[in-house]
Amino acid sequence: MTLVLRETHPETTVVRVAEVPIGGPALAIMAGPCAVESEEQVVATARAVKAAGANILRGGAFKPRTSPYAFEGLREEGLRLLAIARAETGLPIVTELLDPRHIDIVGAVADIFQIGSRNMQNFTLLDEVGRARKPVLLKRGMSATLEELLLAAERVAAHGNSEIALCERGIRTFETATRNTLDLNAVPYLKRRSHLPVIVDPSHGTGHWWMVPHLARAAVAAGCDGLLIEVHIDPAHAMSDGFQSLTPESFSRMMTDVRAIAAAVGRQA
Amino acid sequence: MTLVLRETHPETTVVRVAEVPIGGPALAIMAGPCAVESEEQVVATARAVKAAGANILRGGAFKPRTSPYAFEGLREEGLRLLAIARAETGLPIVTELLDPRHIDIVGAVADIFQIGSRNMQNFTLLDEVGRARKPVLLKRGMSATLEELLLAAERVAAHGNSEIALCERGIRTFETATRNTLDLNAVPYLKRRSHLPVIVDPSHGTGHWWMVPHLARAAVAAGCDGLLIEVHIDPAHAMSDGFQSLTPESFSRMMTDVRAIAAAVGRQA
Amino acid sequence: MTLVLRETHPETTVVRVAEVPIGGPALAIMAGPCAVESEEQVVATARAVKAAGANILRGGAFKPRTSPYAFEGLREEGLRLLAIARAETGLPIVTELLDPRHIDIVGAVADIFQIGSRNMQNFTLLDEVGRARKPVLLKRGMSATLEELLLAAERVAAHGNSEIALCERGIRTFETATRNTLDLNAVPYLKRRSHLPVIVDPSHGTGHWWMVPHLARAAVAAGCDGLLIEVHIDPAHAMSDGFQSLTPESFSRMMTDVRAIAAAVGRQA
Amino acid sequence: MTLVLRETHPETTVVRVAEVPIGGPALAIMAGPCAVESEEQVVATARAVKAAGANILRGGAFKPRTSPYAFEGLREEGLRLLAIARAETGLPIVTELLDPRHIDIVGAVADIFQIGSRNMQNFTLLDEVGRARKPVLLKRGMSATLEELLLAAERVAAHGNSEIALCERGIRTFETATRNTLDLNAVPYLKRRSHLPVIVDPSHGTGHWWMVPHLARAAVAAGCDGLLIEVHIDPAHAMSDGFQSLTPESFSRMMTDVRAIAAAVGRQA
Repeated sequence: MTLVLRETHPETTVVRVAEVPIGGPALAIMAGPCAVESEEQVVATARAVKAAGANILRGGAFKPRTSPYAFEGLREEGLRLLAIARAETGLPIVTELLDPRHIDIVGAVADIFQIGSRNMQNFTLLDEVGRARKPVLLKRGMSATLEELLLAAERVAAHGNSEIALCERGIRTFETATRNTLDLNAVPYLKRRSHLPVIVDPSHGTGHWWMVPHLARAAVAAGCDGLLIEVHIDPAHAMSDGFQSLTPESFSRMMTDVRAIAAAVGRQA
Repeated sequence: MTLVLRETHPETTVVRVAEVPIGGPALAIMAGPCAVESEEQVVATARAVKAAGANILRGGAFKPRTSPYAFEGLREEGLRLLAIARAETGLPIVTELLDPRHIDIVGAVADIFQIGSRNMQNFTLLDEVGRARKPVLLKRGMSATLEELLLAAERVAAHGNSEIALCERGIRTFETATRNTLDLNAVPYLKRRSHLPVIVDPSHGTGHWWMVPHLARAAVAAGCDGLLIEVHIDPAHAMSDGFQSLTPESFSRMMTDVRAIAAAVGRQA
Repeated sequence: MTLVLRETHPETTVVRVAEVPIGGPALAIMAGPCAVESEEQVVATARAVKAAGANILRGGAFKPRTSPYAFEGLREEGLRLLAIARAETGLPIVTELLDPRHIDIVGAVADIFQIGSRNMQNFTLLDEVGRARKPVLLKRGMSATLEELLLAAERVAAHGNSEIALCERGIRTFETATRNTLDLNAVPYLKRRSHLPVIVDPSHGTGHWWMVPHLARAAVAAGCDGLLIEVHIDPAHAMSDGFQSLTPESFSRMMTDVRAIAAAVGRQA
Repeated sequence: MTLVLRETHPETTVVRVAEVPIGGPALAIMAGPCAVESEEQVVATARAVKAAGANILRGGAFKPRTSPYAFEGLREEGLRLLAIARAETGLPIVTELLDPRHIDIVGAVADIFQIGSRNMQNFTLLDEVGRARKPVLLKRGMSATLEELLLAAERVAAHGNSEIALCERGIRTFETATRNTLDLNAVPYLKRRSHLPVIVDPSHGTGHWWMVPHLARAAVAAGCDGLLIEVHIDPAHAMSDGFQSLTPESFSRMMTDVRAIAAAVGRQA
């Protein structure tokens, strides 16, 4: 492993998603619904999160689901709606790539590819985004060590693409009170070992919407470069992950608090 | 979840790999090298494991590797060598499918597709083998619950393919003395909840060749339907996993012991 | 660490509990109720498990309980009832020592002290049994590595008492289908590194009575020196752990199967 | 469980350690060496941490050690030196109680008893501090769920002592890059379910001194009521835990940052 290590590349990499830098003084705030459900839903959410301070829109079109009978996303239609939301708001798009065969259709809309936790060691998918000319948000696997996360990033880089943001999103432990255990030790560890920027996802990292603002603040205080937050205009009726989604109002309050913490650690949000 | 549950299908499913049944009174013994390295290696190993009592040949052609710089298998050439070994010995082949785009070339040689631990929740790959007309050996993910393993199998079945053998191969825990923690609780649990046969892989489940025979005996005593064992003619020079590979001689001794245990629980090996 | 290692003491230690050897060709079968509840209960259970082949009676008088409002055992009265059961059946007694201040009263009845999982790193308690002249059954902590288990045994030995049997009883993992994950990798690992005998507790290791016989067979096949099994004359009305307790009838059937496995690995039960 | 729950006691409990409140607007900052080694060491450290903003002195006199051959503390002499440091600085003392038989000698010096991780389920020790008239700092066990931590606190409260501060200190997971995984999800979870104050120990939670300031900031941002920090005047020569101890200088810099975060969340430090 060499390409992703700070010892071979001392300056922090700034990944650019359209105009938005990840890794500079300003935090990257990626927010939006777990799944794209309708034009109204995604556009309204995009406008609300932008107003509250988000600078990248997240939204799932192709959804990985544990049960084969669960809603798997609007797929191509979901991508089309994300493009509409971008046109309306100017926010660049992060959305998940599940399958190497989808790289062209997802790549036609995504400004940054998301590689989900379940695919952190899907090596042929990593190889594919490694050959792409577009940034990658690489989420840590549920039981991946930090070393394995860096090796997965190294694989992307070894195929030619160094525009990678790492994402801590909680690991699987014995604890059952929360969906996952958000591992904020990962933030200083990854920042010290690697030059790549680090994003934290407290929505999956906790699994409870009311915990998200606390851990968002903590992540920024620990030194992360950005956040990935699930926001839904009507969490009670969300098609997935409603229990961990913030309303636009609670997201806006969270952003006020995050701004205060960012200022305290010399960052902007 | 319904298709894979015993409550909806009381009799145990017998999966047929060429002529070899998995789930009947006789144990399925899958043995062979981690990776196919040469014709001499794979044919010699195939002959040796057959002589000792194996009835299916395992061997990796496309290898998932944590580091992008590690040996990733001989790929198509590896498949060709596996076909030669089958022609020489009559043993059917289990080999891993990593990417949905490889289903035709791997399917041209494999008698049963292996879905590896890292891909247990690679949903588009599961959907693809669900549409195939060939059995599937589905390995439990490193941190997958038994419920999630059954849901992954349900996904394969929901796409039309019920020829599935489940495989316990060790889970990731805090223990560092062994590569993984082999979870033999999984055997009676899966056998009670599901009608699908259950295979145990003590090679990955322990990570130490000298532990493999003990856990192979234990797995059979617990009631599994077969074993998946790494055997190499020269473990010290294996290109991968040599530390957990048995020599043909130790595999042969292991089989003698496994036969005694199988007899004690009313099975044959 | 030296005293407990096989490299400094190549022969396997045989611990003697009254007349019963642990670590010799015959398996030590410790069976009985989780908690002593009444004279009738403990004597009837003792007779039944002896008839089925047990050679040591287990039973809790002082019970560690997670909730402060749960039944904590009959305490001194429980010890008195265990002594009656021993007088009636001749079975020696294993019972838990929770507190260094109880060493005399528990030691007056116990033939072997049990140190429970929650106390594997209760160092002053270990020091106390290290000074005692009575064997110790040392249970692995819920999240103790095998190295830490050996270090806990080393502590007992360093205080002068080498009559120690190690006990694998399941570790805490992410899996929720079972109470714990029984780690049978521990059996060959501990037997190779240490000269101390190894007992397996599939009752706590699984948490489901119907899984116990499968894992008891597996443990013997893996090479353990004995079993610790919860048996209750009326599990549905047990004051603790009824869900993982065998009836005398199912224990008797289990012993028939265990005997067959023991014979297959050159042991007696 | 009732006594420790917020539903039965809506206001946050403020635990008073001598004059220092834990749970009020000001953070409790407990700092000092892992082990008391000498009068010079403990007094110099106490003065330094007080100057930097600590308001409680931590220091181990009786030390739990995994290996029986490791330094186990100065014991009674250590307590005597802590009393000197208190006399010199006015800082109240938190020190660990390992054994119920030590309650009087440790209680003669401690202003708040520390119950260590390994003893979170040492029930007779919990019962003993439950009967004491002195506050308790209850550290979460290495693999204890948050529910079990609350049940341990309930046990102390049920014996009459409600002066309890809970402490998150990292849990055991599969990750090996850090000593433990600091679970900051615990902070909002415990604060919502219970009225007891919550302390965070980033020294044990990370195991690397250079990570401690990042996680200390994060803990305060997440809403904790105080910190427990290992500080040593000469970490390179510490008798235990030097690798995770801050120097007085780095502790002082950490406190400057912690103060800025505290202000951002409406607290003082």
